[in-house]
Amino acid sequence: MIRHGTALFVALAMAAPSAVPARKATPAVKTRSTAPAAKPYFPPEPPPAAAQLHGIQYLYGSAEAAALTRQGWRMLADFVDEQVASGTHRGVVLTPDSTLTNPQFLPCGDRPPAVVLDVDETSILNLGAEYDDLVANRRTFDDASWDRWEKTGAAYVAPTPGAKEALDRLRDHGVTIIFNSNRSAANADGAEAALNAAGLGPARHGETLFLAGDDATGHHKDGRRATIAARYCVLAMAGDQLVEFSDRFTSEPNGIAARRATVAYAGIAEMWGNGWFVMPNPVYGSGLQGGPDDIFPKDKQWRDPGPPVPASKFIPAMPEPATPQRKKH
Amino acid sequence: MIRHGTALFVALAMAAPSAVPARKATPAVKTRSTAPAAKPYFPPEPPPAAAQLHGIQYLYGSAEAAALTRQGWRMLADFVDEQVASGTHRGVVLTPDSTLTNPQFLPCGDRPPAVVLDVDETSILNLGAEYDDLVANRRTFDDASWDRWEKTGAAYVAPTPGAKEALDRLRDHGVTIIFNSNRSAANADGAEAALNAAGLGPARHGETLFLAGDDATGHHKDGRRATIAARYCVLAMAGDQLVEFSDRFTSEPNGIAARRATVAYAGIAEMWGNGWFVMPNPVYGSGLQGGPDDIFPKDKQWRDPGPPVPASKFIPAMPEPATPQRKKH
Repeated sequence: MIRHGTALFVALAMAAPSAVPARKATPAVKTRSTAPAAKPYFPPEPPPAAAQLHGIQYLYGSAEAAALTRQGWRMLADFVDEQVASGTHRGVVLTPDSTLTNPQFLPCGDRPPAVVLDVDETSILNLGAEYDDLVANRRTFDDASWDRWEKTGAAYVAPTPGAKEALDRLRDHGVTIIFNSNRSAANADGAEAALNAAGLGPARHGETLFLAGDDATGHHKDGRRATIAARYCVLAMAGDQLVEFSDRFTSEPNGIAARRATVAYAGIAEMWGNGWFVMPNPVYGSGLQGGPDDIFPKDKQWRDPGPPVPASKFIPAMPEPATPQRKKH
Repeated sequence: MIRHGTALFVALAMAAPSAVPARKATPAVKTRSTAPAAKPYFPPEPPPAAAQLHGIQYLYGSAEAAALTRQGWRMLADFVDEQVASGTHRGVVLTPDSTLTNPQFLPCGDRPPAVVLDVDETSILNLGAEYDDLVANRRTFDDASWDRWEKTGAAYVAPTPGAKEALDRLRDHGVTIIFNSNRSAANADGAEAALNAAGLGPARHGETLFLAGDDATGHHKDGRRATIAARYCVLAMAGDQLVEFSDRFTSEPNGIAARRATVAYAGIAEMWGNGWFVMPNPVYGSGLQGGPDDIFPKDKQWRDPGPPVPASKFIPAMPEPATPQRKKH
């Protein structure tokens, strides 16, 4: 009753902030409260961390994110299938001396094919933990609560849309599925349980599941990637954060514009969808930072009513022959 | 000065809500204010619509969204290239009598190859309009302001990451690029200017650009898709909303769970990344709706400290032979 009342209170408190601009003829957005009328639990918890709502609505509730995630898994499976069928053995794990401006990849030799996947918000959706963060108005990461989640949350996760179909297909084709997560090695049973409960297992710690604490590098994943690459030919990797592909992404200049620029570097830009597969996560992580002046370049900061000049002024010179009919359309 | 002061005020006001749980060893999130110390403009505008912040930080500021978008464009271009190279003429526009449970596609005949792309938050990022929404604390869609944006915003947009490279490549291979947008036909000049300024043109209204008002069906796009499919073999479509692929997605049951289920229907599930390409947009649209009880299934609503039972209880029966070594890793 307390939890129910709390959830109801939160759902009602969210009605206003969850209104969003609905452009391009998308249906008007309404908050659907299916909860029965009931007195909110008193004293009520504070209102939810509204800044998280849109990201949560999108990732865990939207059909668009579900389709986007299915798209990623389908393309990863198609890519790996093609590599296996063609006998291509192109590894996608960077060498230790690589930089983002000079990326080199570990050779595969004749090792068996594998894919390396992040776990949280890549292979599984942490529905229970995100629900709890939201209704508890947890604005910053709580290590102790997350530790309890790692231990007890297995029944409260779901596979990301399309993950099970893709992994089943790849296993059928002889590809080993390996998970590389920063969940704690001390909670290996919980991590195995979560992946197995989501239908993505079997995941076995030290064999097909690697965790923080498996080596001396803590939360860095390059060491574990090297360990995996010594046993397998890693044909593809998937993750929701840049660090799922290389720890180098944390050692490069880390401002918003600089981070965004690194993914377009020569040698890096062509990896996206071509060995490195990104899954969406607008809910947490290193991508979520900055205010308007950080996110939007100065020269793009339009203010209504806009410049008193014709838009044509802004058209750069490019071949666009005048076609007398065009205005009639 | 007014705009600058406002932006600074907003950037400062956002410091707290922009804190996010940083898991998986992602760097601690800090709000970077690069604005010089200065008195905020008085009277200050109200604090920004915080519910939008995470989505905006992710889509317009994160390297992860940039990589995810490059991935989508690369896969769309690879897919279309392969179709053209192999002479495959498989159209991806649904027939008028299709349903989501029985999707059928318009035949291509020998029409020339094309791709059909949504414009806003698919081909271009509306940086100026989103900046203005944010600092003006515009919580709901303002038709008049958006109309002014369509007319004057051309210089304040950017191509979505990877879009220009993909479209240049497809045009080089003889594929016609067609834009199908719900911007107003009355503002066709502004829409052409925005696409051209972003380097994605030439876009010509009635030829390679279709807009709301081009036919009698208003903001519905199926009519325009049929018009385009009568002239071209549409090998791929891209959009950030389900309605970019078929208006049927609005006529089906529209609750959160129902919408999310439709993208997994037989005949629909296999289209994602295979003719239909989704671009991320956690900032606005039909996917953003609902509170905790709508988004999170009842049976996934975990609350800290969680159930007092071992995670193993939740593991479904599946082959997982005991390996004595596993605990030692």
